[in-house]
Amino acid sequence: MRVAIIGAAGMLGHKLALRLARDGVIGKAKISALLRHDVVLAPPPPAAGFAVETHLGDLSDTGEAEKLVAWKPDLIFHLAAIVSGEAEADFEKGYRVNLDGTRNLLEAIRKAAANPVPRLVFTSSIAVFGAPFPDAIGDEFLTAPLTSYGTQKAICELLISDYSRKGFVDGMSLRMPTVCVRPGKPNKAASGFFSNIIREPLNGMEAVLPVDDTVRHWHASPRAAVGFLVQAAEMGGAALGNRRALTLPGLSCTVAEQIAALERIAGKKVTALIKRQPDDTIRRIVSGWPQNFNAKRARDLGFSSENTFDEIIMAHVEDELGGKLP
Amino acid sequence: MRVAIIGAAGMLGHKLALRLARDGVIGKAKISALLRHDVVLAPPPPAAGFAVETHLGDLSDTGEAEKLVAWKPDLIFHLAAIVSGEAEADFEKGYRVNLDGTRNLLEAIRKAAANPVPRLVFTSSIAVFGAPFPDAIGDEFLTAPLTSYGTQKAICELLISDYSRKGFVDGMSLRMPTVCVRPGKPNKAASGFFSNIIREPLNGMEAVLPVDDTVRHWHASPRAAVGFLVQAAEMGGAALGNRRALTLPGLSCTVAEQIAALERIAGKKVTALIKRQPDDTIRRIVSGWPQNFNAKRARDLGFSSENTFDEIIMAHVEDELGGKLP
Repeated sequence: MRVAIIGAAGMLGHKLALRLARDGVIGKAKISALLRHDVVLAPPPPAAGFAVETHLGDLSDTGEAEKLVAWKPDLIFHLAAIVSGEAEADFEKGYRVNLDGTRNLLEAIRKAAANPVPRLVFTSSIAVFGAPFPDAIGDEFLTAPLTSYGTQKAICELLISDYSRKGFVDGMSLRMPTVCVRPGKPNKAASGFFSNIIREPLNGMEAVLPVDDTVRHWHASPRAAVGFLVQAAEMGGAALGNRRALTLPGLSCTVAEQIAALERIAGKKVTALIKRQPDDTIRRIVSGWPQNFNAKRARDLGFSSENTFDEIIMAHVEDELGGKLP
Repeated sequence: MRVAIIGAAGMLGHKLALRLARDGVIGKAKISALLRHDVVLAPPPPAAGFAVETHLGDLSDTGEAEKLVAWKPDLIFHLAAIVSGEAEADFEKGYRVNLDGTRNLLEAIRKAAANPVPRLVFTSSIAVFGAPFPDAIGDEFLTAPLTSYGTQKAICELLISDYSRKGFVDGMSLRMPTVCVRPGKPNKAASGFFSNIIREPLNGMEAVLPVDDTVRHWHASPRAAVGFLVQAAEMGGAALGNRRALTLPGLSCTVAEQIAALERIAGKKVTALIKRQPDDTIRRIVSGWPQNFNAKRARDLGFSSENTFDEIIMAHVEDELGGKLP
């Protein structure tokens, strides 16, 4: 099985490559080659029992999607995107990369007409939803995004369902919870603080909390997110019928509950590093975000993630800090 | 006020032009000029107290949307589309016209940056919804289309909401019920029989019924549809907040109820002209269509349509047959 990861230089893309290198298989299918694709250079390739190629390119450039499809992937993970804050600030760039890039990929796949068609696992987002919300957003709730990023993701979901229905691709769109604790440096996502207030204090650094403690949000660890991608790839899109977009399980908790978990795990000295600096812009953005879901469909399909924020913190401590607490 | 109708040669576009010519105003704003735009020649222009221009062109051609926007419309009705059957048969044409054409229009409007921005009334469709459905589809039900046409409409809805949220246009997407009784010749829409079984017998002609009598569907007259367009144009999109797509009121009734109404109005001799010829392809398509809605949001905003199928037939008799029954 030939596997391509688009957006391989990103946090999730790199973790996925490491996981595939470790496993060597997708379900029962042995991986024979891995293509890592991104606009920027990915980290050094993982040691793997199969060939790993790394291509630089932008799917929104003419001919780039065709080149990728000519590599004949059996399975494509498409994780590449301009993040929410940047897509909101640069309208044209957001549509070009997040919409046109994905559409170019779908068109290249359709025109190549491989038999069987490749499987496509696309990372969508809970940003496809916009307030007002019910207490828990169910699987039949409308997508009414309040950002251009969410709009672009919702449009890609519709395209992937239609291309799959027509038999041009075997696609799935996974609506990821906010990935927390996100390792490394902050990116331009307005959701960054959910991770910053855990990661930075665990590193002995201060972190800014720009919203109220009562803010509730929907989280899963990077480890769970990679697990979702692999599980979806094994399962295939047919299990989703004609509705190829799937809201994944997550943990609904408040910022106060995040901080309480951090205190239980690492003590008051660590949580004292969280500095409350309310930011009205971020407060306003976050007030339009989903807080809780009933991800019944995904749970029925066997997807699961952390049940407590303590587990989410411990996944970070194990995977990023070598199991060591400060 | 300068008004453009895109898709002016279509049934609804022409009726709308006639209505605007008759009224001379949109709300309190006097119409100063009307531009009728279509890929095919529209019927002769209506006598009107304002200038009527007719342009031939295809919005999906480079530069065409810019030309239309350069005409400086204050209000644009965008009704142009490849219908469902054709969009399903010709994948590329459907996406080019129904998606790219609309996106070109939105981009041309954004780049022209008029102040105030033009108002845009776009005809969407209940085809944005796909089975399985609840008993009545509410205003928060997901768009999971089962046709490329429905996918294209759902994507345009998302674009119009996002461009409106960003302040580039004042847009609205109106999810029209199936327009019945559609006058004139059948088009390629798979929903044609709902009108055929009324219109043709009233003209003394046979009509084919390809589905069971128990099929339930969602209807409004052409007169009501034109009323929706004008009412939305008067209201403006701000009333819709950030959710610029609106499911409009209609009448939910079965084919048997349609036929019973026809018999009440025109007698058994007329309904005897309906020939039952089950067609499995059409049956299958129609089984995925919505049957009933709870259009609460639109009703709360003051939109209304017929309450009985008898009224729908009588609107046809009055508007198309000069009030004469056979």
